[in-house]
Amino acid sequence: MAEFNFGVEMGYFRANIEKAKGYVPGFQPKETDIVKLNTNENPYPPSPAVMQAVAEVGAEQLRRYPDPLGDKFRKAAAEVNGVGAENIMCCNGGDELLAIAFEAFCDEERLVAYPVPTYSLYPTLAELQNCGAIEVPFDGEFNLPVKLAGSGAALTIVCNPNAPTGTFISAGELANLAEEISGVLLIDEAYVDFAEDNCARLIEELDNVIILRSMSKGYSLAGLRFGYAIACAGLISGLMKVKDSYNVDAIAISAATAAIKDQEYFRRNVEQIKKDRGTLTEQLRGLKFEVIESSANFVLAENRDCKASEIYDKLVERKIYVRYFPVPGLGDKLRITVGTSEQNERLISALKEILG
Amino acid sequence: MAEFNFGVEMGYFRANIEKAKGYVPGFQPKETDIVKLNTNENPYPPSPAVMQAVAEVGAEQLRRYPDPLGDKFRKAAAEVNGVGAENIMCCNGGDELLAIAFEAFCDEERLVAYPVPTYSLYPTLAELQNCGAIEVPFDGEFNLPVKLAGSGAALTIVCNPNAPTGTFISAGELANLAEEISGVLLIDEAYVDFAEDNCARLIEELDNVIILRSMSKGYSLAGLRFGYAIACAGLISGLMKVKDSYNVDAIAISAATAAIKDQEYFRRNVEQIKKDRGTLTEQLRGLKFEVIESSANFVLAENRDCKASEIYDKLVERKIYVRYFPVPGLGDKLRITVGTSEQNERLISALKEILG
Repeated sequence: MAEFNFGVEMGYFRANIEKAKGYVPGFQPKETDIVKLNTNENPYPPSPAVMQAVAEVGAEQLRRYPDPLGDKFRKAAAEVNGVGAENIMCCNGGDELLAIAFEAFCDEERLVAYPVPTYSLYPTLAELQNCGAIEVPFDGEFNLPVKLAGSGAALTIVCNPNAPTGTFISAGELANLAEEISGVLLIDEAYVDFAEDNCARLIEELDNVIILRSMSKGYSLAGLRFGYAIACAGLISGLMKVKDSYNVDAIAISAATAAIKDQEYFRRNVEQIKKDRGTLTEQLRGLKFEVIESSANFVLAENRDCKASEIYDKLVERKIYVRYFPVPGLGDKLRITVGTSEQNERLISALKEILG
Repeated sequence: MAEFNFGVEMGYFRANIEKAKGYVPGFQPKETDIVKLNTNENPYPPSPAVMQAVAEVGAEQLRRYPDPLGDKFRKAAAEVNGVGAENIMCCNGGDELLAIAFEAFCDEERLVAYPVPTYSLYPTLAELQNCGAIEVPFDGEFNLPVKLAGSGAALTIVCNPNAPTGTFISAGELANLAEEISGVLLIDEAYVDFAEDNCARLIEELDNVIILRSMSKGYSLAGLRFGYAIACAGLISGLMKVKDSYNVDAIAISAATAAIKDQEYFRRNVEQIKKDRGTLTEQLRGLKFEVIESSANFVLAENRDCKASEIYDKLVERKIYVRYFPVPGLGDKLRITVGTSEQNERLISALKEILG
């Protein structure tokens, strides 16, 4: 069957849905003998505590409806983030929180605003929710655009660290932005585990800030679909009206709780990736790539001599997958996930062959 | 923390979200020494093949993103239903498909219509999507209301077997309805595993029919959150634009696939419940309950002598939970899930005490 063939126009759908293109996720090859550095998965397995939680799943857990709020996870995540359980909402992946936020805050008269380039799901969700999107370009150094505060949007989103640039905006700047706007600021911290700071503390003072977190990257659980929101209790209550009542399943609640409780494993894993990110950055620079300093588990790199599309194709021939975005502003760049030291070495060797 | 406190009005949300009440799911007690007949779970464990699939989950399945379309499940479900894999879309529970359908077809000018009383999530989703809801009352025998065909709605939903009545409308009548309307007909077959027929075959001839299926009831997987749509390929393509790209997780795909492949276990389990439904119906009638003939895994019963709310409270004192809906048309009735023979016997003994 054809994947992602969204072409059929039937007349039954809302006009905005008919014309929407739909989000196309990164290629998920089914082979395993490849170097997969294209969708920012963590190269290391999840904590052994996760595997144990899954192994202990009983028939009764599957037979009965799960806890609709996932309180076990909420308590654990609250502790890790220094907030209350009432400040946490579990989601079926961070993407679900984004969809919920668009549904909660946006419509034809209530717009969304975000700096670009950024996560390409935002414009797709704007199309689906039929709301206008105010896209404010970053400057060459990916600083927070001054114009963002004046957009008048009901929902402002800042991906921080930003995808696909890996750049980071300080918590102080984002707090100022939240104070300046009249709507809600959603800070998409899907990659924040690899940064030196985060914005969780902002929710104490600011009732219009929602932090998005993902268990896919830092906790190696992309296959599980688990993310969460951190916000003041009032915002969480409103968002809960919009979510499906049983949006996270019983196994996912158990596994994600086990993962977030094992902070020691998490920290060790993240430190290794940050160290390897430094090495990879230096090696790429040695091969005439311009590499933006990254606070995420990927780097965005542009070669001074060779086209990104050409490098991409030659890497695929060698069964090495990175991400290439054929869109304005990114078409000359490759986004490369930080893999294991061995995977990074295989990438660098291949690049030496291709470029040398 | 307080559960389902949706009261806070902050001014940040869309007006329809601010005023929405939110769906309150059936009570999920955390104790296990109770007779739980309130949320239509299957009283039997899932197939041993499911437990094995969960036990075999590896770290790599969790670390990597899942198959965005869940093709393994789609193929298995297509085979069981005599359709093609392109006619199947996986969902994070049947409720997610309902939310997707509202988003795909409804808005302020595109209404939803459904007979009432029915599943109370429909009006909640209409509130969230800010679309008008045309509620067409059933007659006393819960026949398909003639007026439904003329509603002009963009989305018509018929829950079949209907919740909470358990009544069934024939495939022929629903095919006629689909032909008469200009919009889409979603047939919510969450409970169809316990009926004598289903509407999957309608999608061959009708390009405006979506069948909703759930793995929660017949397959004992309420804790897993897995449902699916059956529809013509064009409708499936459109619905896929609306769903989150990775809406079902890797473990859920494996477990649900194992469940649907074990048709022998499924059939045996369902036959037992249907047999026990008959016994329970007779016993309740012997206790002066009027019981509607049910095609689901629950019965709707009204006692001629005693108030439903009173019976409900006295059952709770005995740690037996059934569902009581304090709403017009249902306030004198109890919805009772068919449990194991032993659970049903405990219920009947308790009722004898309470009523005798």
